[in-house]
Amino acid sequence: MSSTSDTLALREQVLQANLALPRHGLVTFTWGNVSAFDAARGLVAIKPSGVAYDRLTVDDIVVLTLAGAQVHGSLRPSSDTPTHLHLYRAWPQLGGIVHTHSTHATAWAQAGLAIPALGTTHADHFHGAIPCARSLTRAEVEGDYELETGRVIVQTVGDTDPLACPGVLVAEHAPFAWGRSADNAVHNAVVLEEVARMALYTRLLAPQRGPIADHLLDKHHLRKHGRHAYYGQR
Amino acid sequence: MSSTSDTLALREQVLQANLALPRHGLVTFTWGNVSAFDAARGLVAIKPSGVAYDRLTVDDIVVLTLAGAQVHGSLRPSSDTPTHLHLYRAWPQLGGIVHTHSTHATAWAQAGLAIPALGTTHADHFHGAIPCARSLTRAEVEGDYELETGRVIVQTVGDTDPLACPGVLVAEHAPFAWGRSADNAVHNAVVLEEVARMALYTRLLAPQRGPIADHLLDKHHLRKHGRHAYYGQR
Amino acid sequence: MSSTSDTLALREQVLQANLALPRHGLVTFTWGNVSAFDAARGLVAIKPSGVAYDRLTVDDIVVLTLAGAQVHGSLRPSSDTPTHLHLYRAWPQLGGIVHTHSTHATAWAQAGLAIPALGTTHADHFHGAIPCARSLTRAEVEGDYELETGRVIVQTVGDTDPLACPGVLVAEHAPFAWGRSADNAVHNAVVLEEVARMALYTRLLAPQRGPIADHLLDKHHLRKHGRHAYYGQR
Amino acid sequence: MSSTSDTLALREQVLQANLALPRHGLVTFTWGNVSAFDAARGLVAIKPSGVAYDRLTVDDIVVLTLAGAQVHGSLRPSSDTPTHLHLYRAWPQLGGIVHTHSTHATAWAQAGLAIPALGTTHADHFHGAIPCARSLTRAEVEGDYELETGRVIVQTVGDTDPLACPGVLVAEHAPFAWGRSADNAVHNAVVLEEVARMALYTRLLAPQRGPIADHLLDKHHLRKHGRHAYYGQR
Repeated sequence: MSSTSDTLALREQVLQANLALPRHGLVTFTWGNVSAFDAARGLVAIKPSGVAYDRLTVDDIVVLTLAGAQVHGSLRPSSDTPTHLHLYRAWPQLGGIVHTHSTHATAWAQAGLAIPALGTTHADHFHGAIPCARSLTRAEVEGDYELETGRVIVQTVGDTDPLACPGVLVAEHAPFAWGRSADNAVHNAVVLEEVARMALYTRLLAPQRGPIADHLLDKHHLRKHGRHAYYGQR
Repeated sequence: MSSTSDTLALREQVLQANLALPRHGLVTFTWGNVSAFDAARGLVAIKPSGVAYDRLTVDDIVVLTLAGAQVHGSLRPSSDTPTHLHLYRAWPQLGGIVHTHSTHATAWAQAGLAIPALGTTHADHFHGAIPCARSLTRAEVEGDYELETGRVIVQTVGDTDPLACPGVLVAEHAPFAWGRSADNAVHNAVVLEEVARMALYTRLLAPQRGPIADHLLDKHHLRKHGRHAYYGQR
Repeated sequence: MSSTSDTLALREQVLQANLALPRHGLVTFTWGNVSAFDAARGLVAIKPSGVAYDRLTVDDIVVLTLAGAQVHGSLRPSSDTPTHLHLYRAWPQLGGIVHTHSTHATAWAQAGLAIPALGTTHADHFHGAIPCARSLTRAEVEGDYELETGRVIVQTVGDTDPLACPGVLVAEHAPFAWGRSADNAVHNAVVLEEVARMALYTRLLAPQRGPIADHLLDKHHLRKHGRHAYYGQR
Repeated sequence: MSSTSDTLALREQVLQANLALPRHGLVTFTWGNVSAFDAARGLVAIKPSGVAYDRLTVDDIVVLTLAGAQVHGSLRPSSDTPTHLHLYRAWPQLGGIVHTHSTHATAWAQAGLAIPALGTTHADHFHGAIPCARSLTRAEVEGDYELETGRVIVQTVGDTDPLACPGVLVAEHAPFAWGRSADNAVHNAVVLEEVARMALYTRLLAPQRGPIADHLLDKHHLRKHGRHAYYGQR
């Protein structure tokens, strides 16, 4: 079992990423949580359940193994923990996961609709539509609900590289986003919300508008990601 | 009759809950009020009418009996006081009531429409649609208007546990929300406004979308409320 | 001619009312102005044209006679001054006038639509629809444009008491609001913007929804205004 | 080659104009950039690529010749630099250019629609519709993409004076705005976003509403611009 000091840096990273959620206007009350994954040690740090952001301390952050055994913290982890753990087990290349009920992304999830790639803002970050997972069945909801939520997310992303599509909507629920680190996951959650807002307004102006052409999608995505990226400082 | 010091804690609680309304963006000018109920003594504390939040002091808070006799304060209580008193008489399990004209909830009230349970954000707090009370008749409007408003609210909630549906819309008017305490009532008023906003956007994206399945509604509501709740710290 | 000190209180009142516009989110850059009318002396104080709010001083405020002769200040008055002066000449009971391009009220003006009284928030402040003035003719636009704007506003209000309908929309342009004082005019401009926002959302939810019944309109308006008002402290 | 001190004033102006973007709510993360053009020396200063606004210093600002040779700064310039350079070469009367992904203007761009002149707020700043450039072809996207973006912008403005129409939408992408200086370009970018927001709401209220009459468009534009302007202080 890891000692307390071993996980301090991981917990500090998760604390700061959680505090970024209200700063970016992504959460009402405690409706959001961020986790981080330390692949080398197979440990996940996550926000405790129902604790207000302005009272959260680094010691409150819960640390668990990938199998769900709690190795640090006396508080109960987020009720969404089984979803996070399932995603890290499926995609160990992730460094962080964010779940929020951010307003516009949640509206698309409640509508049961994928967000089409309507412009370059979207393409810069998501290499195609942001998919909307199918509704969970009654058996899934009444069974191991949070784990099943993780399973439909993985099912929805399918063969796509999860880092090329760093978020999905869960139908009738809300968005999940992820990234190379907890910070990067928060970044992608902010983008997902802003893209959802722009897409709502675009749809109101031009209901029949379809997604942008693949050459524009590829151009913008690969301008920022991959071997030939030329955006930013290297 | 209660002495001044007897009600200080009750008035302080009401003061703080009223000050939370502008902080949560729920009010323009003085368009909102919070009351609290001390069931043990049968006393209600409420905001005075038309006083700006930034000038409100604990001494301005008015205290009344359930029958409406003023036992503390020299200012006139909120003009909505008869509505609040009627709700406490009908549902003595309430600890606080909030009335606002928050933008999105008021838009649904003006539309005369209940807010359907379109997602888990809604289900976490309201166990079904947020109902919209019927329009008051001419006789009700011209009679004891604020009392009649309380009566249609109670009529609208009917046999439902008011704490499982902690708010309603009054048609052509605005929302009322309540809870176990004044603080909890403000919490529910914030949720009602955010749920109303998400539901407006959802409706714009998917006009025909109906409410979520009962098993999802129950799952989310009971995850947070009742004997088997497992959200938060216990 | 009035001396400088004579108009200091009037100018100070106008300065503070102008500074309230950005604080209430009603203006972008310099797109708004407030004036006040001192009926006893027949003087109008108004914001100078195109000066940023954060640089405005009490000395910058321009004072004019009702006929438009400048009696204080070296800056040019707001280009909308002839509109303000015309309204004070028509309705000497006004103490203040506000013109803004606030977002939602301007959207209704651009749509050329009156804002129907869809709820009690509206009825509390406007005793009926907020009318939209007709478009100005080409001759009016190319003639004494700002004066003609005042004329169509007065024409639009007609026989109604301007203090019972303290604002109108000018088609394809933006709102004007007024009141018993400059402060009260700003209050009504804030209400007009919020009512316009609620009415837009209501219309999106229920496009066919008509205005509330006269008995509800009267009840709410007279609860706050006139001899039998019982809202607030007296 | 110019020495460092030669371009300090130009870089300081660009730094301040870039910092104004988040203050005006026009940008998420690093999604925006401002440049300035010193016509006398043929030099362009521009934000470096992907650097956060709150870490930007005057020394980070990159300076280039109109042909794109970097004469100051060790960071890579904005990836949109070839667009900016092309506009300055086509229109040397410009002093500044702004590119953002501001929410409402981007929604119109994603919808592929020009913003019609629906009111005087628009007319005060843009002398006619804000055009939407055509989509780039596959060859243009896969070729010298950012340069081609500049070319379609110039094509779209055509024979119009670019200072009478100080901005366009690039279809499926986002807005570009410009002006007599970097400050003035930011001013026009703020106006473009606010006008886009008002136009969206107007369209929701009155989908068939067409542009205002030419006499009203001319009146408002020329009230603020050109020889006979009478808005502001001269």
